[in-house]
Amino acid sequence: MISILPVEGLPELGAGDDLGALLARAASFEHGDVLVVAQKAISKTEGRVVRLEEVEPGERARELAAGRDPRHAQVILDESTRIVRERDGFVIAETRHGFVCGSAGVDASNAPEAGTLVLLPVDPDASAERLRARIRELNGAAVAVIVSDSFGRPWRLGTTDVAIGVAGLRPLLDLEGRRDPAGYELHSTVIAVADEIAGAAELAMRKLARMPAAIVRGLDLAGEGSARELIMPAERDLFR
Amino acid sequence: MISILPVEGLPELGAGDDLGALLARAASFEHGDVLVVAQKAISKTEGRVVRLEEVEPGERARELAAGRDPRHAQVILDESTRIVRERDGFVIAETRHGFVCGSAGVDASNAPEAGTLVLLPVDPDASAERLRARIRELNGAAVAVIVSDSFGRPWRLGTTDVAIGVAGLRPLLDLEGRRDPAGYELHSTVIAVADEIAGAAELAMRKLARMPAAIVRGLDLAGEGSARELIMPAERDLFR
Repeated sequence: MISILPVEGLPELGAGDDLGALLARAASFEHGDVLVVAQKAISKTEGRVVRLEEVEPGERARELAAGRDPRHAQVILDESTRIVRERDGFVIAETRHGFVCGSAGVDASNAPEAGTLVLLPVDPDASAERLRARIRELNGAAVAVIVSDSFGRPWRLGTTDVAIGVAGLRPLLDLEGRRDPAGYELHSTVIAVADEIAGAAELAMRKLARMPAAIVRGLDLAGEGSARELIMPAERDLFR
Repeated sequence: MISILPVEGLPELGAGDDLGALLARAASFEHGDVLVVAQKAISKTEGRVVRLEEVEPGERARELAAGRDPRHAQVILDESTRIVRERDGFVIAETRHGFVCGSAGVDASNAPEAGTLVLLPVDPDASAERLRARIRELNGAAVAVIVSDSFGRPWRLGTTDVAIGVAGLRPLLDLEGRRDPAGYELHSTVIAVADEIAGAAELAMRKLARMPAAIVRGLDLAGEGSARELIMPAERDLFR
């Protein structure tokens, strides 16, 4: 059996908070647990917040904004290496990490205050690794950590949470060379387990409840890996 | 807490099997459970299996196959309304249901025998509804049912399981108009909970273990809905 346990009782988070210590106090961890933490909790404690009043939009940002706040568009451009699609001020962009997502992960909802935007962590794998080390130090448990964010998908409505940072976990489960019960080789079955775990954790988090973390217990996926493994290499990408 | 319990002990499935009765015997259900069943289990019992030796490939199929088996390509074409991308015999297509996925959901792995292909159910919502009614009849429990399949995603490696059929569940959770803790209206937050549930169930199923079903317990999402709600309307689709 797999269990998904929300981490309850975290305070409102701000820059400089010791999120690992707060999590270690709020929850009890077991060896092999996967701790999933929403990106915004990480970004806030890492100070990845921009004040709109300090942003000077350029010409491209005014064009991209299409009538919306051009300062918001400027922040999206600053976080992007490539605009994948744009329409009516809605932007899908590739981030500096290589993730393709809405607004390059720049978000106004759940921002600490009006007039601010929350950015993705600079290095979400490193953020995950720091949390993992801190929980190990304080709690003794060897947990894996996933930093999650809500991404939209082409062709399907609604967001699902996916992994943008990983520590202590193999994000892909490759069944290559194994055989299914009929003897067929499963030559192309690679499962993005880290994304499925992030989505499962979201079911327990509920965005409104100030509950930015959940524990997924009962998996057996410990190992080493990076969320960058989840990025489709450009040469295999049919949608560039 | 949310729990994910694999349904163990199902026999090898074939056309005409009473899958609802087999599931009702293999597992005990509680009110509010979400039963997730892998598409292939449904398709096999519904006889959605094609023998390659009975397929006559046309010219377009030979072209699409790009050196692979043109009969396989013909079956993909028969299941498709639109080819979205193709490269080296790898095809992403829109199915008759409106889902965009690899090979229009046509699959050789986990086929009942060599030389056969498994197709998606004709109406996965109806398949889900039949299972739901049968379990209600035999077990008394009002469960929701999701028919799941493994879909690839643009820009990200690996598959995640998503919902292609739904009964007794609202597949999208719309937070429109609600406010996050900072008072921001979450005007664009729609969560594809049915897809997250399907992915969570996949973590317990494990493709190799002949375990095509899992129960997700502890959610509170009962309602009415269709997996077609998860399909992005063409006018909002930036990737047509």
